[in-house]
Amino acid sequence: MTQETGDEAPSASVGVHVLRVGIHWGLCDPAGIVYFPRYFELFHQAMETWFSERLGLAYEALIVGRKIGFPAVHTEADFRRPTRFGETVAVELRVRDTGRSSIAFDYVVRDHEPSGGVRATGHTVCVVMDLDPDSPTFRRALPMPDDLRARIEAFRSQD
Amino acid sequence: MTQETGDEAPSASVGVHVLRVGIHWGLCDPAGIVYFPRYFELFHQAMETWFSERLGLAYEALIVGRKIGFPAVHTEADFRRPTRFGETVAVELRVRDTGRSSIAFDYVVRDHEPSGGVRATGHTVCVVMDLDPDSPTFRRALPMPDDLRARIEAFRSQD
Amino acid sequence: MTQETGDEAPSASVGVHVLRVGIHWGLCDPAGIVYFPRYFELFHQAMETWFSERLGLAYEALIVGRKIGFPAVHTEADFRRPTRFGETVAVELRVRDTGRSSIAFDYVVRDHEPSGGVRATGHTVCVVMDLDPDSPTFRRALPMPDDLRARIEAFRSQD
Amino acid sequence: MTQETGDEAPSASVGVHVLRVGIHWGLCDPAGIVYFPRYFELFHQAMETWFSERLGLAYEALIVGRKIGFPAVHTEADFRRPTRFGETVAVELRVRDTGRSSIAFDYVVRDHEPSGGVRATGHTVCVVMDLDPDSPTFRRALPMPDDLRARIEAFRSQD
Repeated sequence: MTQETGDEAPSASVGVHVLRVGIHWGLCDPAGIVYFPRYFELFHQAMETWFSERLGLAYEALIVGRKIGFPAVHTEADFRRPTRFGETVAVELRVRDTGRSSIAFDYVVRDHEPSGGVRATGHTVCVVMDLDPDSPTFRRALPMPDDLRARIEAFRSQD
Repeated sequence: MTQETGDEAPSASVGVHVLRVGIHWGLCDPAGIVYFPRYFELFHQAMETWFSERLGLAYEALIVGRKIGFPAVHTEADFRRPTRFGETVAVELRVRDTGRSSIAFDYVVRDHEPSGGVRATGHTVCVVMDLDPDSPTFRRALPMPDDLRARIEAFRSQD
Repeated sequence: MTQETGDEAPSASVGVHVLRVGIHWGLCDPAGIVYFPRYFELFHQAMETWFSERLGLAYEALIVGRKIGFPAVHTEADFRRPTRFGETVAVELRVRDTGRSSIAFDYVVRDHEPSGGVRATGHTVCVVMDLDPDSPTFRRALPMPDDLRARIEAFRSQD
Repeated sequence: MTQETGDEAPSASVGVHVLRVGIHWGLCDPAGIVYFPRYFELFHQAMETWFSERLGLAYEALIVGRKIGFPAVHTEADFRRPTRFGETVAVELRVRDTGRSSIAFDYVVRDHEPSGGVRATGHTVCVVMDLDPDSPTFRRALPMPDDLRARIEAFRSQD
């Protein structure tokens, strides 16, 4: 899914994955707005659905089946305008960069309308990690598998 | 808990609201299954979407606009089979009963396939509460508003 | 830890484990009170600390080391008075009963003062489950280990 | 509370607030480690307890009583080593800086032992915000109140 974007407009050639989220009661705090740690949960959900919907690789199949994980080593977010209980937002995921063993994601949380205003932006760097306890590199960084890299590059080149 | 279900199919005359939920990473515990308190969050999300999608009354409009809340006074759940990370479930909501100032909900969490197996069942009793600080009955039970009762009865009689 | 109790007073011979919890921002909802699914998280935390502090068996050592788990098969709660952001509560755990492969817990959430008023009560039934993938009874109920049963009985007979 | 610190050692004159946290089941993900958004909840809890325990200003009294809030406008974290279920960590809070209407916090999550290894570091910038709906500056930044600034400076100069 791509959409027209406003003040954060990426170049048209950059792939964008969008997760729409209704802001339910349990995401909000006594101020009636999204409790800020929950934004990182939304970013993570966007990443999980990106794997399955856009790369054709179910996140759980990678983790449980292929024993490859993607722990975050860095994450950050800027909060521009609060998101209130009952609103619907679009969480956009873009791949900023890939390294030998890492993926860097950019996130934008907007009003769900096209050209919706920006509520928050985020950035996370994940490492490709060996989760196989029988492997000599258990819990260490792995070179990104070729099929994963190819699918990410295909996503990045989508309109 | 009574419901016409055999253990799967509800009778066609019973109103059912269904929320589909992908079981994401953050809902799960170190056993790789939904951490059981999270089922109550799913029940609550089913109720929130029921208000807006099936009654035509946005939950936040009731709470913020009309200053009517629906706090739980009792809730319970039975867990039959674990739900694993990466699965998709259907959370079904039915209205078991309404009282002068209360609504009793039944929930069933199933595999998302039609006639899917039951993972968990739940039951919650909510009170209709006055949230208007300027009202003499602030934070006390209110008789259910007529429009709300009429919409709930219409929902219950739907195929 | 035992404490004088008020209207829910157990017999003096019944063991009570108490977890004190400051109600922080993230436990609360837009009404400024504990979001009710979070009570079940507090019950679970009380159980975890009961294992380590009162039975002398660290919960994680049982699960990771001995490969024994305690999934809930039933839970319920009644909410009497809301608990507000900034308050401190005492979550009391008592063992109601043990079966061949199960433990039934009762919970009371009170104001942290002795004889504090009751906010909520809860009840959970957990099954003793085999978590060892190499065992023929993997993911099935296990007879409760003798050392665990002996420690639970010792706890129940404490003042 | 101050403690000897290791590789992150601040100058001895910098005030440190420490929150000890047992890593319970609900903080952890299917990998058996703290789900990274939960670190931001721990940072927030450290801030809440810092207000009450170190500044003598209860967080809820500021928010509810004085109608002053502290929403985050930026936050970030680096994750060095995972924290596992059952461990205990120390979340250290330091004030990096204060501005006319802002407070910048640094966080370090360590093994709970003195000189414990670093698990994660974080940084959050909060704005002092007017929460009084009857004020002309409702939901806008406020100059930091003098009493709050004085208490923060006293904290920063503590050993």
